[in-house]
Amino acid sequence: MLVVQKYGGTSVGDLERIRNVARRIARYKEEGHDVVVVVSAMAGETDRLLNLAHELVEEPSPRELDMLVATGEQVSSALLAMALNAMGYPAKALVAFQIPIKTDELFGKARIRDIATDRMLEELKKGYILIIAGFQGITEGGDITTLGRGGSDTTAVAIAAALGADVCEIFTDVDGVYTADPRIVPKARKIKRISYDEMLELASMGAKVLEIRSVEFAKIYKVPVHVRSSFSDEPGTMVVEEDETMEKVLVSGVTYNRNEARISLYGVPDRPGVAAQIFGPIAEAGIVVDMIIQTGRPDGRADMTFTVPKTDFKKTLRLVEGLAEKLGLEKIEGAEEIAKVSIVGAGMRAHPGVAAKMFEVLAQHGINIHMISTSEIKISCVIDEKYTELAVRALHEAFGLDREPEEE
Amino acid sequence: MLVVQKYGGTSVGDLERIRNVARRIARYKEEGHDVVVVVSAMAGETDRLLNLAHELVEEPSPRELDMLVATGEQVSSALLAMALNAMGYPAKALVAFQIPIKTDELFGKARIRDIATDRMLEELKKGYILIIAGFQGITEGGDITTLGRGGSDTTAVAIAAALGADVCEIFTDVDGVYTADPRIVPKARKIKRISYDEMLELASMGAKVLEIRSVEFAKIYKVPVHVRSSFSDEPGTMVVEEDETMEKVLVSGVTYNRNEARISLYGVPDRPGVAAQIFGPIAEAGIVVDMIIQTGRPDGRADMTFTVPKTDFKKTLRLVEGLAEKLGLEKIEGAEEIAKVSIVGAGMRAHPGVAAKMFEVLAQHGINIHMISTSEIKISCVIDEKYTELAVRALHEAFGLDREPEEE
Repeated sequence: MLVVQKYGGTSVGDLERIRNVARRIARYKEEGHDVVVVVSAMAGETDRLLNLAHELVEEPSPRELDMLVATGEQVSSALLAMALNAMGYPAKALVAFQIPIKTDELFGKARIRDIATDRMLEELKKGYILIIAGFQGITEGGDITTLGRGGSDTTAVAIAAALGADVCEIFTDVDGVYTADPRIVPKARKIKRISYDEMLELASMGAKVLEIRSVEFAKIYKVPVHVRSSFSDEPGTMVVEEDETMEKVLVSGVTYNRNEARISLYGVPDRPGVAAQIFGPIAEAGIVVDMIIQTGRPDGRADMTFTVPKTDFKKTLRLVEGLAEKLGLEKIEGAEEIAKVSIVGAGMRAHPGVAAKMFEVLAQHGINIHMISTSEIKISCVIDEKYTELAVRALHEAFGLDREPEEE
Repeated sequence: MLVVQKYGGTSVGDLERIRNVARRIARYKEEGHDVVVVVSAMAGETDRLLNLAHELVEEPSPRELDMLVATGEQVSSALLAMALNAMGYPAKALVAFQIPIKTDELFGKARIRDIATDRMLEELKKGYILIIAGFQGITEGGDITTLGRGGSDTTAVAIAAALGADVCEIFTDVDGVYTADPRIVPKARKIKRISYDEMLELASMGAKVLEIRSVEFAKIYKVPVHVRSSFSDEPGTMVVEEDETMEKVLVSGVTYNRNEARISLYGVPDRPGVAAQIFGPIAEAGIVVDMIIQTGRPDGRADMTFTVPKTDFKKTLRLVEGLAEKLGLEKIEGAEEIAKVSIVGAGMRAHPGVAAKMFEVLAQHGINIHMISTSEIKISCVIDEKYTELAVRALHEAFGLDREPEEE
């Protein structure tokens, strides 16, 4: 079997942990597998390097910043390969240019374009364990790039895809994907199998287990991803292609997000181009708008509500207040004490009535819904922040997430 | 003018010093020069990385150790380029694979085989200042190598040679090469110009200003090297091809070395192969023998004296004691309290009598000579350690090194 494994910064956070990871890798090798490992920088190292750059100059040049930060993974991959070599397991550390992992030229958030497999296959054939520096690539011209935060997940999935690996194991400091945040729902269960689409919705909702781009990559190339703990041998969560058994489960998980704030504009003129007039300046200010809801009124005007990150709330308010007169708005109003609660499940596609049930559950607990937004496999409601825990627990129970789903 | 500059670890030891170096580089650019800069790792960084590796495993695999240690210069070159970019001087950091700087495969002490100039010339033409990570290269197969301690000097000289630079300036924490150690000889003068050969003899004698391989490189490719302080604007010492004016100076400098010990073997059988029997086991034990002197005796036997590093003295004694019976040696004797005092000067070639004058000066001060060894431009005497300072000062004065040489 060809196994690609990824170890995050915490898993290789100090020398003792690097030795532990080496022992785990050696076990796989002993079982007869070919092993390709992708590592992040040792915990704290990337931040140390970024701080160094920002202490030196206000705005570091992006090309050199990537060159600087990329050393973090070069260090951890070299150390891990050393540990394996010292244990008698021949290993080679490889950085992006040695493979090469080609990316576009967007320094700081480059996208992988192509991964050559010749060198990796050749070294695997010679019996080497490969330790690959995650998070980085090189451009066509040979400049060093980085893939942005969490990029090592993407490196691992992309390498698994390129090599046609049997599985891509993501070792992290959590032991899998849960039906809800266990800190809020003590009865939350670890999900055994979940589809790429569900994982994408969960990841974007703040279940920070897998970097979202790595899931997109896994989905496109159909790479089975196993998310699991680097501190135990328990199986974690398999992220795989959707199949029929998944459709039987209405809802796979409940998530929440308390980092957004709501802004409502009343009496927006209902004419073409108004939305652009409102959201153009907000986008230019670099503020990411999440949900947008617009409702027509009998008087030919409309009310519009949207959410932005809490940290951008005041800035956004000032921006729309600047537009109030020009657009003849009746009223601008906002709230920071809100939360978005979502249910995610591939089974929604086949089963109507999931949304209705969600609204009913919230109503039964006296929770008022301010905004609703839906996708094929997700329903989100914005509610008052103080009801977050209550809503998550109630939905978790109502959709039967406390119980293990029946196995076929 | 095309100037190659090298800044050592102390010169880029912290962010403030990096900013200072950037300002100095900017000045050269303002004067209209093309500038290529080679940097070492920030002071202490190479040792930090080496310690990390040796804390992790007893014997780090050489390939991965080089990969690890090479990050030190990648960090400093990226930071220095950032500082220049922030000041408005377009700069690009380049690591070995981006040039490329090709070496052999001797990890930890690789030798430069070839430096491509296309990329560098192209970037210079575009107006970039180039900041090159020193001390490292890549093999034909793309593995990262390092050139060994002081390797950044070699990188700088090799790049200056490849680009046909007008001068290679080595900025360091001393301000040049002196006629003697100023801590011992207060009247020691900074040498304005010195030949490659003299510099080689001085460097190998312990005047640790320039790495010896970089001088060999400079000599082969006739690169004028300017050794100077990164903390001042004073000119330092030019290391250049020998010319007639140099021959007028009998002696350029006086050096000493207190790190060796002497071992004497009496009654060595005078037959072919004996020397190999003695020095074979010593070499196999990794002990570097410096001077060797053998004198025949009327009885057909010989007496042999040699020096080894003080740290290897006891080990060497045990080794030769093991041979005593087999070779029928009469006596083995050794001394640790010795020093080697040397005078170096290209002028010796043309002027006989320099050696005689050296012996006379030592005799006048009552200093007994235990061993003598000579090369074309160097004479070394082993004396009792306690006379080191006296000998160095006496020779410095006797050969007129206190006075500035006459300019032509």
